[in-house]
Amino acid sequence: MMQNNERQALVFRDGIVFPNPIGQALGTYIEKNEKGYLLLPGPPRELEQMFRQSVTPFLSDKYEDQQVILSKTLRFFGIGESTLTTLLDEMIRNQTNPTIAPYAGKYEVTLRITANAATEAVCEKLVDETKAEILAIVGEHHYGDGDESSLAEVVGKKLLESKRSISAAESLTGGLFQSELVKVPGISEVFAGGIVSYQAEAKQRVLGVPEHVIETYGMVSPECAVAMAECARELFDTDLAISFTGVAGPDQMENKPAGTVWIALSKKNGPTAVQGFRFSRDRLGNREQTVMQGFDMIRRQLMDSDLER
Amino acid sequence: MMQNNERQALVFRDGIVFPNPIGQALGTYIEKNEKGYLLLPGPPRELEQMFRQSVTPFLSDKYEDQQVILSKTLRFFGIGESTLTTLLDEMIRNQTNPTIAPYAGKYEVTLRITANAATEAVCEKLVDETKAEILAIVGEHHYGDGDESSLAEVVGKKLLESKRSISAAESLTGGLFQSELVKVPGISEVFAGGIVSYQAEAKQRVLGVPEHVIETYGMVSPECAVAMAECARELFDTDLAISFTGVAGPDQMENKPAGTVWIALSKKNGPTAVQGFRFSRDRLGNREQTVMQGFDMIRRQLMDSDLER
Repeated sequence: MMQNNERQALVFRDGIVFPNPIGQALGTYIEKNEKGYLLLPGPPRELEQMFRQSVTPFLSDKYEDQQVILSKTLRFFGIGESTLTTLLDEMIRNQTNPTIAPYAGKYEVTLRITANAATEAVCEKLVDETKAEILAIVGEHHYGDGDESSLAEVVGKKLLESKRSISAAESLTGGLFQSELVKVPGISEVFAGGIVSYQAEAKQRVLGVPEHVIETYGMVSPECAVAMAECARELFDTDLAISFTGVAGPDQMENKPAGTVWIALSKKNGPTAVQGFRFSRDRLGNREQTVMQGFDMIRRQLMDSDLER
Repeated sequence: MMQNNERQALVFRDGIVFPNPIGQALGTYIEKNEKGYLLLPGPPRELEQMFRQSVTPFLSDKYEDQQVILSKTLRFFGIGESTLTTLLDEMIRNQTNPTIAPYAGKYEVTLRITANAATEAVCEKLVDETKAEILAIVGEHHYGDGDESSLAEVVGKKLLESKRSISAAESLTGGLFQSELVKVPGISEVFAGGIVSYQAEAKQRVLGVPEHVIETYGMVSPECAVAMAECARELFDTDLAISFTGVAGPDQMENKPAGTVWIALSKKNGPTAVQGFRFSRDRLGNREQTVMQGFDMIRRQLMDSDLER
């Protein structure tokens, strides 16, 4: 045995020792002057496994008469942090337990609800009650819970559940919407495909947007967005089709400033919806925000019951 | 004046004071027992500006008779870290000044050359000499320098410089190649657009891949990749067209394991090239690596002189 290995096996005489099933160095807990010290191995993989397997149960036992803390994150899109906190002003001002902490992400806002009680069950009840109160006020903008769920994932799963097929026609976003959608495993069941019609000629020849639409209204127009979505839906024969056209920047186009965006959503047996935006980020930011808005348009459409199939 | 503001104006009697044009707290340099101490404001914006405007010139003056250090990062694709370091083994073993440090990134390898000399000019000469020696051995895989340049950006700029138009047909990558390409400002001059043919039907009806190709060879085949690239090039009438087909995972498809990928590059007036890969990452990782390989195929094609236009 190497001298170095021998040293790794040393522990404090009065300590509590934690085993290391995947490495050499042991973990120890010692107390001195009413303070507790945890000594854990350095490699993250070993540290994490030891913490999960030994340290967490040890601490739970040791502090079992203490309070439990539980958090849940609610995710919102299509509402700013200031509007959200204004609408929830009374709740936030009067918060004691649970507490409500707003956080402004890159394109969304999250609220973390944290409860503190004797047991996990009581915490959960407190969190769920607060969640219900919040959703009664701003539920329209709530798309999911947790730290992991993305808007694309939530929409992809809703499409799969409701068995609605979809296609896309992308101009300024250059395929970003579709590449986000295909992150959802199994999406090929409902996602047929799409066209990236970056140049005007591609919009006409490949996608089939009528020449007069582009000549009369330009490529950055609600009329062009509507035509793009409807052409994609026909080409791919899907229940839904979404289109994106606009100016990513940094330069303007057709005398429209960078950040001007039109998104259209075509439905089988229903009118095509179209929305205009004016974003003020950089080239990539405008594009990412456009894609998020597109996912949100689909989410709201799927929530509505008026989609005839 | 608040007491707190007054406190922020305090400095050491024997210190050298740095002004803070955008905040309250001043910076100070003091010496004690032959050690130098820098005291700087906490807010990153104030710290950074003070460091640039006052501290860097102060330190340069103070240590003007000291050595200069200069680094350059070389970026490689299509070669593993172990192969690269084996090929450069002698150079790396004998390194003194400049030093050569290899680093394995997610999909690429970088080498950092660091020189140490009396002046910046001497450093640059040393770095450039070492760079030339390295490129004489592994130059084929070198695509750019610096910490910022991406393979997509390098390829986009090469397409713009050589005025070669391009289109794409994407299956497993779902639009990721195109959304990376459109990050390059001005790319609309050469990038026409593309098709995301995710389902088999989209490959046939929208892209125009002959039914017998898919029936005989399947979608995950070199034959399908070639047909996809050639169909895209004809549809969009471009100089080049690239196609991606394969199995992103996690499940297999057509009895081909996850990670099986075919990439084809069609050229005006030239044979279509096709390459097969077997990646072993997760769904997103396989897709990202596929896109990088695609960009590298285009880069190598543009370096070759045999592209008739």
